[in-house]
Amino acid sequence: MKPISKINVGLIGASGYTGIELLKILIQHPIFEVAYVATSEGGIELDALHPSLKDIFTCKVQKADASQIKERCELVFLALPHQTAMGFAKGLLDSGVKVVDLSADYRLELEVYEKHYCPHEDKEHLSEAVYGLPELNREAIKKSSLVANPGCYPTASLLGLLPFVEHIDENFPIFIDAKSGVSGAGKKCSPSTHFVGINENIFAYKVFSHRHEPEIAEKLRLKSGKEFDINFVPHLIPATRGELIDSYMLLNEEIDPIAVLKEYYKDEAFVRIFENPVDIKTCSGTNFCDIYAKRRGNKLYVNSSVDNILRGSSSQAVANANLMCGLDEELALPFIAYVP
Amino acid sequence: MKPISKINVGLIGASGYTGIELLKILIQHPIFEVAYVATSEGGIELDALHPSLKDIFTCKVQKADASQIKERCELVFLALPHQTAMGFAKGLLDSGVKVVDLSADYRLELEVYEKHYCPHEDKEHLSEAVYGLPELNREAIKKSSLVANPGCYPTASLLGLLPFVEHIDENFPIFIDAKSGVSGAGKKCSPSTHFVGINENIFAYKVFSHRHEPEIAEKLRLKSGKEFDINFVPHLIPATRGELIDSYMLLNEEIDPIAVLKEYYKDEAFVRIFENPVDIKTCSGTNFCDIYAKRRGNKLYVNSSVDNILRGSSSQAVANANLMCGLDEELALPFIAYVP
Amino acid sequence: MKPISKINVGLIGASGYTGIELLKILIQHPIFEVAYVATSEGGIELDALHPSLKDIFTCKVQKADASQIKERCELVFLALPHQTAMGFAKGLLDSGVKVVDLSADYRLELEVYEKHYCPHEDKEHLSEAVYGLPELNREAIKKSSLVANPGCYPTASLLGLLPFVEHIDENFPIFIDAKSGVSGAGKKCSPSTHFVGINENIFAYKVFSHRHEPEIAEKLRLKSGKEFDINFVPHLIPATRGELIDSYMLLNEEIDPIAVLKEYYKDEAFVRIFENPVDIKTCSGTNFCDIYAKRRGNKLYVNSSVDNILRGSSSQAVANANLMCGLDEELALPFIAYVP
Amino acid sequence: MKPISKINVGLIGASGYTGIELLKILIQHPIFEVAYVATSEGGIELDALHPSLKDIFTCKVQKADASQIKERCELVFLALPHQTAMGFAKGLLDSGVKVVDLSADYRLELEVYEKHYCPHEDKEHLSEAVYGLPELNREAIKKSSLVANPGCYPTASLLGLLPFVEHIDENFPIFIDAKSGVSGAGKKCSPSTHFVGINENIFAYKVFSHRHEPEIAEKLRLKSGKEFDINFVPHLIPATRGELIDSYMLLNEEIDPIAVLKEYYKDEAFVRIFENPVDIKTCSGTNFCDIYAKRRGNKLYVNSSVDNILRGSSSQAVANANLMCGLDEELALPFIAYVP
Repeated sequence: MKPISKINVGLIGASGYTGIELLKILIQHPIFEVAYVATSEGGIELDALHPSLKDIFTCKVQKADASQIKERCELVFLALPHQTAMGFAKGLLDSGVKVVDLSADYRLELEVYEKHYCPHEDKEHLSEAVYGLPELNREAIKKSSLVANPGCYPTASLLGLLPFVEHIDENFPIFIDAKSGVSGAGKKCSPSTHFVGINENIFAYKVFSHRHEPEIAEKLRLKSGKEFDINFVPHLIPATRGELIDSYMLLNEEIDPIAVLKEYYKDEAFVRIFENPVDIKTCSGTNFCDIYAKRRGNKLYVNSSVDNILRGSSSQAVANANLMCGLDEELALPFIAYVP
Repeated sequence: MKPISKINVGLIGASGYTGIELLKILIQHPIFEVAYVATSEGGIELDALHPSLKDIFTCKVQKADASQIKERCELVFLALPHQTAMGFAKGLLDSGVKVVDLSADYRLELEVYEKHYCPHEDKEHLSEAVYGLPELNREAIKKSSLVANPGCYPTASLLGLLPFVEHIDENFPIFIDAKSGVSGAGKKCSPSTHFVGINENIFAYKVFSHRHEPEIAEKLRLKSGKEFDINFVPHLIPATRGELIDSYMLLNEEIDPIAVLKEYYKDEAFVRIFENPVDIKTCSGTNFCDIYAKRRGNKLYVNSSVDNILRGSSSQAVANANLMCGLDEELALPFIAYVP
Repeated sequence: MKPISKINVGLIGASGYTGIELLKILIQHPIFEVAYVATSEGGIELDALHPSLKDIFTCKVQKADASQIKERCELVFLALPHQTAMGFAKGLLDSGVKVVDLSADYRLELEVYEKHYCPHEDKEHLSEAVYGLPELNREAIKKSSLVANPGCYPTASLLGLLPFVEHIDENFPIFIDAKSGVSGAGKKCSPSTHFVGINENIFAYKVFSHRHEPEIAEKLRLKSGKEFDINFVPHLIPATRGELIDSYMLLNEEIDPIAVLKEYYKDEAFVRIFENPVDIKTCSGTNFCDIYAKRRGNKLYVNSSVDNILRGSSSQAVANANLMCGLDEELALPFIAYVP
Repeated sequence: MKPISKINVGLIGASGYTGIELLKILIQHPIFEVAYVATSEGGIELDALHPSLKDIFTCKVQKADASQIKERCELVFLALPHQTAMGFAKGLLDSGVKVVDLSADYRLELEVYEKHYCPHEDKEHLSEAVYGLPELNREAIKKSSLVANPGCYPTASLLGLLPFVEHIDENFPIFIDAKSGVSGAGKKCSPSTHFVGINENIFAYKVFSHRHEPEIAEKLRLKSGKEFDINFVPHLIPATRGELIDSYMLLNEEIDPIAVLKEYYKDEAFVRIFENPVDIKTCSGTNFCDIYAKRRGNKLYVNSSVDNILRGSSSQAVANANLMCGLDEELALPFIAYVP
């Protein structure tokens, strides 16, 4: 018999990289109990989808069905493509199920969303959604039933930039040169994700046109009241996981950037400030965001790193779920890196 | 005006890895002139298929059409899937076009072929085909109009084993543990070729059931008159190109394997004998097969390496074409490795 | 104040890969408390050695000093080179400190050790040492004060072979073709571990002369009473961690190898039997050994996989320490793989 | 007997990556004849240093001795560390031997050099040296006896930026975010070049303090008369070769950057303009610099790629040597990429 303190949670979208990462955390979570696992197709054993779970955690993967979730779960993680996600979220929310949505559907203001994605089909809940970056919105997340989990690039970019918003000269553009491991491109096969296409290679893609660019800009604007001119260039690198952000901007005053970072994050458990450039391996496998910065005259360089499928997605989703359920935010979040 | 000494050649199957490797060699060939390039779909510029050829060699890729080839080419390379290849070869051969077939369609005796592949649709030419391993069949290749280019695994395996056929104890099995770069799995995307699937990974596949196993056995039998019990286990490794073969067997007499190898290949330009284990990088980018061997009592270990898409496919195909056209076998074959 | 149930443990050799892996596990261990961390040089903060531990676990790394350990620790892990390890073990054991030695110093019978390593300097304790493969020696480990942690290759090889010792025909050799990630070659820089040397490469080394070969042979002999002729060929592959073993042998009777494996390991928590070839990623990051096998006539192929620095070293060391201290063997052992 | 048209050349510094790349090109060069090969230590066969040259090109590697070179060579390549290079160059130049120096010793104006490197020991020849970027200084190179081969980062950065110097607003900084394969860090082993350190990793290093930064700034200033504020951040990526440059800047007028590039390089054989972001694989193995650019309002993004040890070093050195000897610049330069 399940002890009274357990909380049943569900996962729709178990087959992708964020799905397996969620499962890896939830399996070890002391309070959350995985009560429902689904994909769009269902009808398969979980360890056939993810052989690494063999003999550890087995269950039947369901064909996603909102009505079943309502009966079984207090909270559900949606690891689904945008547009599909809001289709599920709407009904679940109306039934009183809490939702952590890992897609983009509830991340943006209506106008920005519809410009970069598609017409929004759940405007009602959109206005209630909280953007799930705990360092930015912790108190609001605690009270929310619908948290929009941030994109991976915005997570690492914002955590690097937010401490400096008062000091950045908004008359000059901010250039963000981002590098992501291949898991960021998803499980779907393509010439770019084929080993032969990306091994021994690196390239930029969606120059100034990636959908995470307006997400970064909007959150900086909402926080600071200033309009920053964000210019975002993502790259794919021959690594499985990890994301490195290099941001370049001008300052309106001479600051000590390491001191600014340390002060800003002095009470945060999952942001680490380094005095040398960060790499992706040191935080790979964890919920940490590692940050370094350097000033040269009025120029500022900010260098931040996350595990794209953990802090940039699944472990941050669990942090949000913890907060939404009145639990300790840090519960079950991974903090031991995959080094060496 | 084209000088009289040039020989027009064609390529059907330009989009895959063996296609681009053939083009890379043919572009630099002093006698062969690429007069026809086709894929199953056609209708595209060659440098759209292969951006690395931009500003180097451009042409319109045709939709494969045997009748056009007959007019334009003396010899054609078929870089096509098995079964498709024989469909083209038949008519081309009847029109007097020489064919180097990189598929399996003409590599095996009828019975062996039909057991492991499909019913053969060109039995007439099958009996005339020569197995295109120059070190084994050089004189026959020179006289042939139809050369079956060996598989990559058989090339490296046979070049390692052939010098020892008289010395191997055929009462004991030969175990071949083979390792191939991902290009050996082809350009088609799959979970195994997705970067995330094979990076930081290695695994065996088709244990004792790979179609190259009967190819190795047949050629050893034809050469020696002995039935060897070949047991072949291929692996995929996280590298783009290259193939390493480790063969284990028992001997019927005490030999010095390095001396045997040196004697056997003393007149061969594209086999190198090493006194230490070989790696795949030292011959990557070339037509070389590098070989090492070590005996311990009556046990023999043979260690051979090729570039799977060159010696294991495309450069060997050009060697065969050179021989079939009365040219110097070595013409245009790559010999400078991609190291470092 | 430390609760009474905690057990203080120490680590000598904190700088290498096995050192960091031990720390990663011990930090999360509910009973073991890391009371002493040393390297041969000392005098550095732990997170300067291992930046991934920043803000997680910090302490001063000591210069290794046996006398301090005796005061502070009930058990110590020696992650040191062979010969150095026995120098420390001797005194510690005499002072009543339990020792898990990750080196080769106490793994072998005296004669075998001195043939392959160096003169033994602690023969007294050698005879008491237990070979720390829990599936083989669990009860003896529980009673021991000195456990010799197995080598990485022997761990994966033995777990694959032990279930079959009665069925293997010892009149024929066993060939073991092993593949290891680069962490297996240690942290020391060399042309083989330089990225440019091993990336896009694979090669055999120490053919029939690796010191793990006699370790495998000895343990099989001790278990079965039969002399097996082990022929071991290790390879380095371009991956950070993971180890795949392919073993080839002859049988003396027709068995169903999967059934044999399932029966043999039916009560084991950290061995998983797969019905398809195993890979290294599915158990990377865990204490699992994954095994597959296939029979063809009288030939047997066994395919086993471990994380070389966990099951092949550090997590197995913690399993042994758990047993030696009367704790649940599984305590704190990692079971969630690093996939994707 | 050597035909009259051959030119004897020498190489000092044969053991490193640029050394082997020079040899690979020179071996196939129709006019240059490798008459002297040396390292600082000498006394070894060339194929013991570089096993890939086995059975292709063998010679005794000498201990570097300027007096021997004078007798044997008309031109010499110095693939040596800075400071060591000028020690050799001085005497060779005085003896009438032409020098292509791959180090930094003759790349910079005296003041800039001494600020970033060390006191200059050959000021006399420094003033005669020509900076060997053919697209910038072709005519001067032809007349020179001492060519300073550009750094890898400056080559790719300058080829991307030079076409735009008139259009760039020099009142704002230029940010250059560069990514290099590990061969760029040299053959010396270090934690950064150890496979385990850089595999699955990426990191910035020498932020705003890399010595190539002043080289880029100086050449832009000399060309344009404008002082550009260059801010350079290099990264190491988990690839063997290749270098990608992302440059960010402001424009003083609205231009079509692709049109500017095409016009500027319309007569250049080794610069290719792409209409999509470039990658490193498409020009890996060649002397090409591939460039793409995109404008957004007054912001310009320039994206250029070279093979760091070819166009960024050795093949550009051969291009310079060709020009200095009155040969066709393109002679023997590699143009077929290592794809796939």
